[in-house]
Amino acid sequence: MLIQLQANICPDQKTAIQDKAKELKYKTTEVITQAGHYLVGTGKAEFDVRTIGHLPGIKDIHMVSDDYKLVSRKWKVNPTVIDFGDGLQVKEGELTLMAGPCSIENEEQIEKTIAHLVSQGVRFMRGGVFKPRSSPYSFRGLGLEGLKMFYQLCRANGIKIVTEVMQVSQIVPMEPYTDVFQVGARNTQNFNLLDELGKVDKPVLLKRGISGTIDELLYSAEYIFSGGNEKLMLCERGIRTYETASRNTLDLNAIPILKEKTHLPVIVDPSHGIGIRDYVEPMALAAIMAGADGIIYETHEKPEEAASDGAQTLSFAESARMIQKMRKTFELRKELV
Amino acid sequence: MLIQLQANICPDQKTAIQDKAKELKYKTTEVITQAGHYLVGTGKAEFDVRTIGHLPGIKDIHMVSDDYKLVSRKWKVNPTVIDFGDGLQVKEGELTLMAGPCSIENEEQIEKTIAHLVSQGVRFMRGGVFKPRSSPYSFRGLGLEGLKMFYQLCRANGIKIVTEVMQVSQIVPMEPYTDVFQVGARNTQNFNLLDELGKVDKPVLLKRGISGTIDELLYSAEYIFSGGNEKLMLCERGIRTYETASRNTLDLNAIPILKEKTHLPVIVDPSHGIGIRDYVEPMALAAIMAGADGIIYETHEKPEEAASDGAQTLSFAESARMIQKMRKTFELRKELV
Amino acid sequence: MLIQLQANICPDQKTAIQDKAKELKYKTTEVITQAGHYLVGTGKAEFDVRTIGHLPGIKDIHMVSDDYKLVSRKWKVNPTVIDFGDGLQVKEGELTLMAGPCSIENEEQIEKTIAHLVSQGVRFMRGGVFKPRSSPYSFRGLGLEGLKMFYQLCRANGIKIVTEVMQVSQIVPMEPYTDVFQVGARNTQNFNLLDELGKVDKPVLLKRGISGTIDELLYSAEYIFSGGNEKLMLCERGIRTYETASRNTLDLNAIPILKEKTHLPVIVDPSHGIGIRDYVEPMALAAIMAGADGIIYETHEKPEEAASDGAQTLSFAESARMIQKMRKTFELRKELV
Amino acid sequence: MLIQLQANICPDQKTAIQDKAKELKYKTTEVITQAGHYLVGTGKAEFDVRTIGHLPGIKDIHMVSDDYKLVSRKWKVNPTVIDFGDGLQVKEGELTLMAGPCSIENEEQIEKTIAHLVSQGVRFMRGGVFKPRSSPYSFRGLGLEGLKMFYQLCRANGIKIVTEVMQVSQIVPMEPYTDVFQVGARNTQNFNLLDELGKVDKPVLLKRGISGTIDELLYSAEYIFSGGNEKLMLCERGIRTYETASRNTLDLNAIPILKEKTHLPVIVDPSHGIGIRDYVEPMALAAIMAGADGIIYETHEKPEEAASDGAQTLSFAESARMIQKMRKTFELRKELV
Repeated sequence: MLIQLQANICPDQKTAIQDKAKELKYKTTEVITQAGHYLVGTGKAEFDVRTIGHLPGIKDIHMVSDDYKLVSRKWKVNPTVIDFGDGLQVKEGELTLMAGPCSIENEEQIEKTIAHLVSQGVRFMRGGVFKPRSSPYSFRGLGLEGLKMFYQLCRANGIKIVTEVMQVSQIVPMEPYTDVFQVGARNTQNFNLLDELGKVDKPVLLKRGISGTIDELLYSAEYIFSGGNEKLMLCERGIRTYETASRNTLDLNAIPILKEKTHLPVIVDPSHGIGIRDYVEPMALAAIMAGADGIIYETHEKPEEAASDGAQTLSFAESARMIQKMRKTFELRKELV
Repeated sequence: MLIQLQANICPDQKTAIQDKAKELKYKTTEVITQAGHYLVGTGKAEFDVRTIGHLPGIKDIHMVSDDYKLVSRKWKVNPTVIDFGDGLQVKEGELTLMAGPCSIENEEQIEKTIAHLVSQGVRFMRGGVFKPRSSPYSFRGLGLEGLKMFYQLCRANGIKIVTEVMQVSQIVPMEPYTDVFQVGARNTQNFNLLDELGKVDKPVLLKRGISGTIDELLYSAEYIFSGGNEKLMLCERGIRTYETASRNTLDLNAIPILKEKTHLPVIVDPSHGIGIRDYVEPMALAAIMAGADGIIYETHEKPEEAASDGAQTLSFAESARMIQKMRKTFELRKELV
Repeated sequence: MLIQLQANICPDQKTAIQDKAKELKYKTTEVITQAGHYLVGTGKAEFDVRTIGHLPGIKDIHMVSDDYKLVSRKWKVNPTVIDFGDGLQVKEGELTLMAGPCSIENEEQIEKTIAHLVSQGVRFMRGGVFKPRSSPYSFRGLGLEGLKMFYQLCRANGIKIVTEVMQVSQIVPMEPYTDVFQVGARNTQNFNLLDELGKVDKPVLLKRGISGTIDELLYSAEYIFSGGNEKLMLCERGIRTYETASRNTLDLNAIPILKEKTHLPVIVDPSHGIGIRDYVEPMALAAIMAGADGIIYETHEKPEEAASDGAQTLSFAESARMIQKMRKTFELRKELV
Repeated sequence: MLIQLQANICPDQKTAIQDKAKELKYKTTEVITQAGHYLVGTGKAEFDVRTIGHLPGIKDIHMVSDDYKLVSRKWKVNPTVIDFGDGLQVKEGELTLMAGPCSIENEEQIEKTIAHLVSQGVRFMRGGVFKPRSSPYSFRGLGLEGLKMFYQLCRANGIKIVTEVMQVSQIVPMEPYTDVFQVGARNTQNFNLLDELGKVDKPVLLKRGISGTIDELLYSAEYIFSGGNEKLMLCERGIRTYETASRNTLDLNAIPILKEKTHLPVIVDPSHGIGIRDYVEPMALAAIMAGADGIIYETHEKPEEAASDGAQTLSFAESARMIQKMRKTFELRKELV
């Protein structure tokens, strides 16, 4: 059960609704986000929805059979729109592109990447300053100082930043310099991080776990939404299977399934997904035909010199070519609907 | 090492080549197919290719590092073309469509499906008469009598038949009534079946194993080719993973990887791949953008009444709509190359 | 529904039972094995079991909810005993050991292995003469002539042969020289092979598929049993996962699960399961504590010179040591029940 | 390269060693733990170990080819011993048992569990107060207040606490009331948490990731060790595969592999591993025979009323029976070495 409350609901009205829900053996969780005020009810009893629905203070009420209720498309049929100002929105019906290096390395690298993105009309730059690495002895990124430099250069050029946050204590220092908090595949079920990102008024790009199910991704999104943050994007980035011919198994099946289950935008990462430079483009185009709302990928002036992930990173020339193809593919998809 | 022999090579010349290879510590296997005459050499020594290459009777010689040599694109850069007569070919650069029910049920079903295919310009009809079933108590298909009926109706309408062969003893009786022998996912490593299909002069559609690697698929193709049959198509049909939201995990990553590794056509089966009717179309379109040479899928006049696989089968109306979209998608892909 | 028929049932009585079942919307399959005569009924209606049970000619009737009915422990609570004569039985409560090389190579190899087995009181020798190989260019075994030599030497020493059958056409020629037909992991769902093995009066050792589920293994066993052959053993040999530190992931979880679901003996193959010589022993001992009825493993006089699988093969000294430990472990398990 | 430094090394000596390593193109990381002082060198050049080894201040030097150097058995052949005082140690050669409920529920539950453990001579009680849950609406544990109660009752009875820490901010408040910090399967690659646990002087039980490789587990252990904490235990708890007959696939193959690769103790969790009450005992006994140094499992006075994981939790009677069997099995294993 999902109850949308009216903006001007008074405390007594809310209490009356909660009491009624309790009477019906539903546990309610109150959720206040940037855009709405909800009571999420979990329980099993079946009842006439009007029993509660007629109470004052209620805007709308939906019975949602999914356990992830706030991110479910069963109550919110219209897809989520995330507004970044300046006419920039992430939403169904437009193709969002996010590109950049795996790791932020230095000022020159950022400037060259920005110049490439601006020339192609791409508005989001990805790049990590905190890098999760399997081995403690690997390069772990430039940290906050790198992020500040990254931010200043992007801001001066109208580019939005997508960058990974690895832990709760990074959220506050990163926030002034971040446009989209990316949650990596190793943190999809870092529930405390999700809880805290629920309290932030910045969009979050939530990646599917390394061997996460589609349902687990939606539950993790529910954590952030129920924490108070509706500005959510989901990201398919490949799953772990027995096959070693590709780095991961990019699971494009997840796209139509997610698009039906949730109102959130679905972004696809073919770079990590297949992990081999020459195959990033066909997977990106395939993802678009499968219904993706956006593509995030890795590009670098000199991929062979990149600090990390060079083998799956496109040169700017390859990136430019792929952007043109992605846009044409997206146009065709819109025609075919 | 792959040696193409001249058509008119005399026995002494062949022996001289084999002796030379032996001297270089290479084991040779002689392969005679519909289209060529080869010596496949397996060994590790490095030598100047001219050492052998200058011998009389040799058309061409290639060092092929892959263990699957005959199906490798490293010696045969031009993609394989499979000719069915009447201007019908399966080849790179054209979109091959194969459609029909999971199981052949009766004459009326075949006639209606043929009418649908003819109206859409589809030249291949799929349909099983020998059905591999997990449980011995399930319906196992109409058998050879069903195939004969299937064949007569198709032949009268210029439609080619794609149908599964499950065991060696079925090959001879099926051959007069079959245009493409399909090897199912449970038989990808049924090596005796592969050996015997190498002796047949009919095309084979070889499916990837239920949890088969891409390399295993290519090795299995090598069995058929080295048995003497070059008329081979590969089929990605979804792999087994931990994810249960889709029936299988259709692995589109396999398409660009296979297209680079082999000269054989790559067909994709989105019906078994994702296993949910509503998602077959987006996966088919995605497969085409990823580089597939063809799509095989399930369609039935009344999917809900199909003897098997109804949940993943398209109605004729859905099929017709998807065909139009697939063709437009394929046109775009050709433009973008 | 599983109906055991009396040995002396007359045709009219059988027809009456089948008619009654049909009336209750059950489809019946008649099964005649070495040991019994059954009607397997598949259907969903619930009814008082006495409705059928009182009919003449019925020995016993059980409602079995599993779809694999004949191999289910829900009707046959007592475990299956497979008798080889000479006091040799495979059964719960005794530890069956089967050992030998991956491939039969020559007479001397067989003789030395037999001497080792005899000295240790092991009664079954494993060894392949038909080898399923991923690549068509690998050694495929000595074939039938090798089997004849293998058989003569074993017979003279009271040793029973366990050897792999790969295809239907091998069954008849192999039968005189084979004591246990092994079905390999690539053939677990080769349903035609299973059907034909159902017609043979020789025990079958059925391996779990490369990525087969426990249920699929039981369904495949049901194929053989319903074909008429009750002399069945199941074999856990490792499944395919993402982990590459072991050759396969030997799934010992399957042992207690299988022991509860079926009355058939469960044998474990730690050699293929973990695939690394040093770890075969701990996995064998673990399998016994988990409830295995037997262990099948690879041993060779000189593992480093074995024609195949040397890296997972024990020397005779290692084998002898492991046998002692396995027997002590098995004694402890019996004490602890 | 792993360099053990002398306790009384002076700064100049250390600098000289670091300079020499740099000259050989090795990057060094200084590690100071409770027990030792190390320089971990990562690099590829081969050189005579005496080049560095003769420098003053060095206790010992080892070339370690593994990328996880500190946790590797290649330099520290003797297994790690973790001392808890009062004669309580976790170490190879003794069987460590840890038991208790999934979630701490209330005082009575703790008291009854302690009474059970004391009666059986078990010295560690497991129990969660911070619970990672897929859904934000599930019970998330009693939190710090629950832990304090848990600690007081355990301390009064000589029982050590094993409890899960989910995030960095919990470490400091939990530390006074925790004997072993457990890192759950969703946090195995929460690198910031690992970094911080490296700074704590309390043992850590690190679980393998949900689909983590054995190598990833060792890398994560290296994070904690290189952070300064040598008191580490590893825990196999089942991996995610396609098989659904068990909750996870308890991977006993990991035991002998880990025991060879690392000097750290290896604990096995059969409760989460197989996830079905009746099968916990055979898997526990199997784990011991495979070489496990300890077993952690779930037990509850009334499993069917447990707040979580009841289906895999043993009653006290089942627990007592299993303890006796585990000890006898461990005795046998020691005899057989």
